[in-house]
Amino acid sequence: MHKNIIQHIRQHIVLSNSDAIILNKYIEIHQFKKKEFISQESRACKHLYYVEKGCLRMYFINKKGVEQITQFALEGWWISDYQSFLNNTPSQYYIQAIEASGIVSIEKQNLDNLLIELPQLEKYFRRILQKDVAGAQLRSKLLYEMTKEEFYVHFSTSFPDFMQRVPQYMIASYLGLTPEYLSELRKKNI
Amino acid sequence: MHKNIIQHIRQHIVLSNSDAIILNKYIEIHQFKKKEFISQESRACKHLYYVEKGCLRMYFINKKGVEQITQFALEGWWISDYQSFLNNTPSQYYIQAIEASGIVSIEKQNLDNLLIELPQLEKYFRRILQKDVAGAQLRSKLLYEMTKEEFYVHFSTSFPDFMQRVPQYMIASYLGLTPEYLSELRKKNI
Repeated sequence: MHKNIIQHIRQHIVLSNSDAIILNKYIEIHQFKKKEFISQESRACKHLYYVEKGCLRMYFINKKGVEQITQFALEGWWISDYQSFLNNTPSQYYIQAIEASGIVSIEKQNLDNLLIELPQLEKYFRRILQKDVAGAQLRSKLLYEMTKEEFYVHFSTSFPDFMQRVPQYMIASYLGLTPEYLSELRKKNI
Repeated sequence: MHKNIIQHIRQHIVLSNSDAIILNKYIEIHQFKKKEFISQESRACKHLYYVEKGCLRMYFINKKGVEQITQFALEGWWISDYQSFLNNTPSQYYIQAIEASGIVSIEKQNLDNLLIELPQLEKYFRRILQKDVAGAQLRSKLLYEMTKEEFYVHFSTSFPDFMQRVPQYMIASYLGLTPEYLSELRKKNI
């Protein structure tokens, strides 16, 4: 039994022990080593992933051949390439473990079947997605109104633990900064 | 009865005529004139809004006192300030009708009650939100990899009707361009 995800679900809805046993039939848990790939470009991203332990990054290779990180996922977060997941089209992203990670995954058809068997989980996923949309709206607003330096200060103040945990060049990629510029900002803001 | 939204829901789930009558108890429909406000800054955004007819824009006033558009909503789209909606905090956005618009709104407590009475609507909202997240991921990727000119070309090719329908200065605001630069791009790309 995957206690972590069950606790997470129980923060949102009632899930009995017998429901948890049903859930267990539809999900898989895998341990990934640091730098292992959870999902790869040019293959369909057929799963939703939940981080029980560890940290993931999602990135694509841009026209210059450089990795561009678009999202991170820490403990308690769901992540997927939703375009690929919903349309069964090849993904343009890589999802990779930044640390040794314990990941719960649920395949699309299994999700559909699970939601037939336990329809109360619809509410759980709706609530998770509402928060995702709220987060995307906030991020979009910050990107419109802040300079890169302000965005860095906001990000490092909001997520100090995360700043310690993730390599600096990955944070630079996510924030759209060169690693050199990020290094200067860090010195200035100490 | 609001035929438009009921048809939209029926694209995703089964909704009987008696369910539609129940739905009707929880939603409101209002007609907004061009330029009328649906939701305003500094008040909590307590509703989700569905566009039956017309077009909305969502914007905030940036530090320079300039309107910055972050989203549009056309027929068949839902829109809200989800941070404000979920946390009952003052919104930082205005939502305004760009054209005369017919808007279905559902208040937060009414949504909760509706979802108790018609739990099958959880699936509908989950599916809408999944598409929203997919859209946000795609937009974020385009913003990372495209120049403003490429983003304009992509946007105008993907949504030609929309380009005709929305004033040029609003498209410039959304794309982060000056109206003068957008005007130049338009001439170049005719």
